[in-house]
Amino acid sequence: MDIKELLLDKALKAKKSARILAGVSSRVKNEALMAMADGLMDAAEVLKSENKKDLEYGKEKGLSSAMMDRLELTDKRISGMASGLKEIAALPDPVGEITRMWKRPNGLQIGKIRVPIGVIGIIYESRPNVTADAAGLCLKSGNAIILRGGSEAINSNTTIADILVKSAVTAGLPEGCIQLVEVTDRQAVMEMIKLDKYIDMIVARGGHSLIKAVTENATIPVARHSAGLCHTYVDTGADLDMAREICFNAKVQRPGVCNAMETMLVHHDIATDFLPGMIKRLHDAEVEVRGCAKTREICSDVMEATEEDWETEYLELVLSVKVVKDIDEAIDHIMTYGSLHSDAIVTNDYSRANKFLNQVDSAAVYVNASTRFTDGNEFGLGAELGISTQKLHSRGPMGLEDLTSQKYIIFGNGQIRE
Amino acid sequence: MDIKELLLDKALKAKKSARILAGVSSRVKNEALMAMADGLMDAAEVLKSENKKDLEYGKEKGLSSAMMDRLELTDKRISGMASGLKEIAALPDPVGEITRMWKRPNGLQIGKIRVPIGVIGIIYESRPNVTADAAGLCLKSGNAIILRGGSEAINSNTTIADILVKSAVTAGLPEGCIQLVEVTDRQAVMEMIKLDKYIDMIVARGGHSLIKAVTENATIPVARHSAGLCHTYVDTGADLDMAREICFNAKVQRPGVCNAMETMLVHHDIATDFLPGMIKRLHDAEVEVRGCAKTREICSDVMEATEEDWETEYLELVLSVKVVKDIDEAIDHIMTYGSLHSDAIVTNDYSRANKFLNQVDSAAVYVNASTRFTDGNEFGLGAELGISTQKLHSRGPMGLEDLTSQKYIIFGNGQIRE
Repeated sequence: MDIKELLLDKALKAKKSARILAGVSSRVKNEALMAMADGLMDAAEVLKSENKKDLEYGKEKGLSSAMMDRLELTDKRISGMASGLKEIAALPDPVGEITRMWKRPNGLQIGKIRVPIGVIGIIYESRPNVTADAAGLCLKSGNAIILRGGSEAINSNTTIADILVKSAVTAGLPEGCIQLVEVTDRQAVMEMIKLDKYIDMIVARGGHSLIKAVTENATIPVARHSAGLCHTYVDTGADLDMAREICFNAKVQRPGVCNAMETMLVHHDIATDFLPGMIKRLHDAEVEVRGCAKTREICSDVMEATEEDWETEYLELVLSVKVVKDIDEAIDHIMTYGSLHSDAIVTNDYSRANKFLNQVDSAAVYVNASTRFTDGNEFGLGAELGISTQKLHSRGPMGLEDLTSQKYIIFGNGQIRE
Repeated sequence: MDIKELLLDKALKAKKSARILAGVSSRVKNEALMAMADGLMDAAEVLKSENKKDLEYGKEKGLSSAMMDRLELTDKRISGMASGLKEIAALPDPVGEITRMWKRPNGLQIGKIRVPIGVIGIIYESRPNVTADAAGLCLKSGNAIILRGGSEAINSNTTIADILVKSAVTAGLPEGCIQLVEVTDRQAVMEMIKLDKYIDMIVARGGHSLIKAVTENATIPVARHSAGLCHTYVDTGADLDMAREICFNAKVQRPGVCNAMETMLVHHDIATDFLPGMIKRLHDAEVEVRGCAKTREICSDVMEATEEDWETEYLELVLSVKVVKDIDEAIDHIMTYGSLHSDAIVTNDYSRANKFLNQVDSAAVYVNASTRFTDGNEFGLGAELGISTQKLHSRGPMGLEDLTSQKYIIFGNGQIRE
């Protein structure tokens, strides 16, 4: 079978499965999720030995230590995957929720009801635990899933998917509800994203080049999970101790993730009070600070920031700092350079807090808190499939509700249109 | 300026305008809508004389009488456009609505707020009144709009857009909030749908070839408004008088629209009772009926339906009829051949009504009513930009809420992530 036929075959099976899955009760879906969790725990040794193959191959290929770390499956990570599936089982089933219902003057009752989207294709890289998380979220919301992970994790992903399929089908879910694309070259992605007759949504998680290729070539609607270039703006009159805690947390607590701060903007009236202590603390934590001219007047031990810095998502212990003359310059900077993922203001001023909330058009806009909270669990939505940086369908952390579509149901007793 | 530069220039202006428009009050937006309505009424004579050019050109080009009818601007249609804009002014502003807000254990208050999408590009054909409707809906929901109508209505569209722009800007809306693409060849569409840095959503209304070209080439998320191949299934035990009224209405009341019935499915137990009277009434109304073998056994004056008939959206006084052995065959037929727009069951059976509602995955699923109700006004949503036949973002009639995005706003008092 060539790649095109292989993908078409999987897509057909998924579509067939999705029609059955849409009618499966919450109880059966939850039992399947619990069985999938047990299946992973029971197969921990096999998982680790298959994962070892990926790690060895990754070493040969010269993957970075950060990539190698993300790739590794330890006992702790395997039980993390299992408990993730159990948590999804415990979440309320979004399918069947009637979100609104009203009556028209002619007596028609019109409602909107959440239904599964159908078939979801997910394209992702490196971390094998995404395989379990994504499958769990899609099944719980009644969707069939086609998984296409990266080549670096193919042995781990194949093993995880096999276990999940076996457990799910034994527990009563239809064949074809979880399928992994074993072909890891780019052509498989290119074929998959054009099967719009069978696949209803593509979730794309990954680097710029993957997202770009998917966006440009897909004929299926795409939920993009791309960059996070997040800002914190420290306003004049802010509680500077609070500002330092928030900025330090946003930069340092976990610098490699999309909701970490990359640029700090500081009102010039408080720059002299705020920056020296802040930058010392960042330097002590081994953060490389790159500042504008004003920043470097105040703190001479700061490196020079270039235009490129404002556009860079570092994902490591590097921070760019800019002193701005007012909130408008801060908002302009964010709207010009930001990825509109998560941005925060630290302020004590009511009007400026409102202005920031209204004018910063990011998926998550914060007043007086760390941008690091942009996360399905932290928001109280439960697990997430990723964080959407686009404006349509869903924005921010994508939970179970975001994996549903809403259709209209209409109850009449003979109404016809005049 | 070449086409590419022209589109880029419009997109840049629209994006700039959108940032301002997002902050404009409902009062100013409503005043602008009223001014736009007045502007159209005042210019009725100019509009009709410009429209005459389009009609003359259409006659030369040999447009069908249906197309010519849709193209014509009469006094009644001009006042219809104006009153449409006034109705939009009277609808509640969706921008700023906080749809949910909750508190986390750490004290963070997290909410979802409706905001404009940004810049919306709309691609449409023939009817010039879409120009006014689309502009009104987009402005009310705080979005800048780029309009690309068809060549056949270019004089009418240009005049309408000029009037709308003048009225809107005089009333206080930012320059660039409404822009018409005067270039009507396909290349303008192809350039427009790739400007993903500036345009946030494309609404595509039109025939199969337009929708296909847009879907395959757009890098911007597309809201598709395509075919409506709608079914009515008459169940055994249904009130046959009610069924005849509903089916007759769904086929005959306005056959040229997307929510009209194209295929009637009839349970074989009632086919002999139901079909003769039904088909006589349809024949009397000059409907050409094409039936399956069973239908033709019962009514010998019915033409033969072929496989192609089940896949055809006639949009005229033609109906295909199939006798099915049970509800499962009816649902299978709909899921196989339908466009998943609007489908109805006529029944008096509780379980089968539920089965149909659950298993038919269309944008609008009806029990005991005509499919002709799938419409923003009939659903009580106010005006609509079209009817979405896709599953993401919005499905069914697209009203003002569907032209918004929801972002998260988070209120803290110093929270940092542990």
